[in-house]
Amino acid sequence: MNENNRLIEAFKQTNYQVAGNGIRDIQVLKEALRNYEGHQESDIYGKGKIIEDFQKKMAEYLGKEDAVFFPSGTMAQQIALRIWCDHEGVSKVAYHPLCHLEIHEEEGLKELHHIEPVLLADKSRLIQFEDVVNMGEGVACLLLELPQREIGGQLPDYQMLEAISAYCHEKGIKLHLDGARLFEILPYYKKSAAEICELFDSVYVSFYKGIGGIAGAILAGDKGFTKESKVWKRRYGGDLISLYPYIISADYYFNKRINKMKMYHEEAKELAGLFNQCHGISTKPVEPVSNMFHVYINSPKEKMESILIDIYEKTGIGLTGYLREIEAEACFYEVSIGDQFGNIPKEGLIKVFQMLDESMKKIKE
Amino acid sequence: MNENNRLIEAFKQTNYQVAGNGIRDIQVLKEALRNYEGHQESDIYGKGKIIEDFQKKMAEYLGKEDAVFFPSGTMAQQIALRIWCDHEGVSKVAYHPLCHLEIHEEEGLKELHHIEPVLLADKSRLIQFEDVVNMGEGVACLLLELPQREIGGQLPDYQMLEAISAYCHEKGIKLHLDGARLFEILPYYKKSAAEICELFDSVYVSFYKGIGGIAGAILAGDKGFTKESKVWKRRYGGDLISLYPYIISADYYFNKRINKMKMYHEEAKELAGLFNQCHGISTKPVEPVSNMFHVYINSPKEKMESILIDIYEKTGIGLTGYLREIEAEACFYEVSIGDQFGNIPKEGLIKVFQMLDESMKKIKE
Repeated sequence: MNENNRLIEAFKQTNYQVAGNGIRDIQVLKEALRNYEGHQESDIYGKGKIIEDFQKKMAEYLGKEDAVFFPSGTMAQQIALRIWCDHEGVSKVAYHPLCHLEIHEEEGLKELHHIEPVLLADKSRLIQFEDVVNMGEGVACLLLELPQREIGGQLPDYQMLEAISAYCHEKGIKLHLDGARLFEILPYYKKSAAEICELFDSVYVSFYKGIGGIAGAILAGDKGFTKESKVWKRRYGGDLISLYPYIISADYYFNKRINKMKMYHEEAKELAGLFNQCHGISTKPVEPVSNMFHVYINSPKEKMESILIDIYEKTGIGLTGYLREIEAEACFYEVSIGDQFGNIPKEGLIKVFQMLDESMKKIKE
Repeated sequence: MNENNRLIEAFKQTNYQVAGNGIRDIQVLKEALRNYEGHQESDIYGKGKIIEDFQKKMAEYLGKEDAVFFPSGTMAQQIALRIWCDHEGVSKVAYHPLCHLEIHEEEGLKELHHIEPVLLADKSRLIQFEDVVNMGEGVACLLLELPQREIGGQLPDYQMLEAISAYCHEKGIKLHLDGARLFEILPYYKKSAAEICELFDSVYVSFYKGIGGIAGAILAGDKGFTKESKVWKRRYGGDLISLYPYIISADYYFNKRINKMKMYHEEAKELAGLFNQCHGISTKPVEPVSNMFHVYINSPKEKMESILIDIYEKTGIGLTGYLREIEAEACFYEVSIGDQFGNIPKEGLIKVFQMLDESMKKIKE
């Protein structure tokens, strides 16, 4: 077994895990279905009570005219950008170099739509107002991801967001929100989802990040936009005869967790604080603005895996199931707080960080 | 309430329905999940035991090197045609004018891939060997749908199929099988799925037609083909973090119904025989070659709806929930036999067809 497998196996053996809502297994679906007795009918190709009710609920929550349930955010966001490009008659959008569309979708936007992105900012920082002003002509749509996941989940000041929105509105540039983790940032901004979404022409949200559902996404905007998006959903093969397994679980876990986002944020700040007290470890951001952050460790990956496995075995508490190498001498991983953090015995957590700090000190020596 | 709604409402009130496997409701999912106790882990972005086991099982069943689970056939088939076009460096495929890609996908193949189809045969008949020979140069892939659903589920002779396959193989034209209803035709051809699939380079099968699952499809072929298809699946946003609700139900209902296809076929022939004995009603094909056929009725749609509602109310047996107008004086609908046919009391069924025949005679007078 290689080191990677050893770490994930040791992690799975722990009694408590610091992050997440638990194992992604079929019990997640069974729990959501428990509330649905009787013979509630399936949605059929985008129609029917089960899908229409949820779309209406999410449109209201996001303060948009209409909303469409999609099997995935990948599908929903490519479609959003295509629609805005078609409206402007151009094939250019702008987003961050670590945007999901740029690094996780096998060039889908380019291969399927021949849309070329302008990459704003650089990989290490957020898009700023100046980046937007200087992005050049001919951009149909700017996509902003809140929070910017690949740099630890960072957020611009709300005033910056308002300024970007006003500028785009003035220039006729559509503004699209990659809100994969929108629910998770509401406590930090102290805004409602609708208040934030009002700054954007179209919005995507996900139900398997902080919400902890199975899969699925909502794309919201005005009625003309959502109507077009349904045509594209059919073209993509996303207009499934039945999406209800995802819709039921999205709705169930939305109701279960939407009011826990403030708690997750507080717990993320607490946990990040513990990491930042350890030698050779820091978090990005230093103070989380959502339920997520990245942990940066000044230690070679293999050495750190052995240290973690030892801690897991001695405390029964797991921090992460993987580490990713940055350079030969450092590694990092991502944390997203969910229901599991609250279950950890405090004395156990203190012990974990004592052991971690001591091990890191030994590496330095 | 308009006539359409009256018919579907009356149909839903019946105790027995002649076609299908029952209402598409959440109990379909709950039944499939009942076998899965414990903590079986989700598939994660196309990996994991739950998806890999099913893909392997279906690859073996179809006699192909490899298989990939897709959320939909729309997605799977566009991708298959794109891959074959890329291999040949052309943008032309051939299929029937009533092919799913031509009439049910909002021009997805053209809008997403700029692939132009050559339409073979005409809307009223099957593609013949001569159509293939005369289709012209530059076609990367020929798609054959077995059975051809939109003309009642018709099939070419097996010898014709072999001749088309041999011709395409010789000419270097890829042959793709739209096997949405492949399982359903095995009893007629008296062939295994693998024997039929051997004639094709790539194959798609569906799990919510005769199998009666929730949604989902398998695309099978050689390993180079399936590897490419996974890249496109990611591009489409079809590589969901979890597809297990569809996989579990596909597997469960495949096991439950795959051996019932011969029975469904026999029952379809019996039912078609009953229709063909009625005045002014005929089926296409006259003798079904699968579990499906179309019912053609020489009566205006509205009049026929009233007749059917009367029959449903008096017998408690429902034939169909909809009728589609052909011309002012005729209408038709589609029948697919499933588990429900066997539950109907024989004397009730006889009564239904007596009433139907008498009503049709009165229309004539």
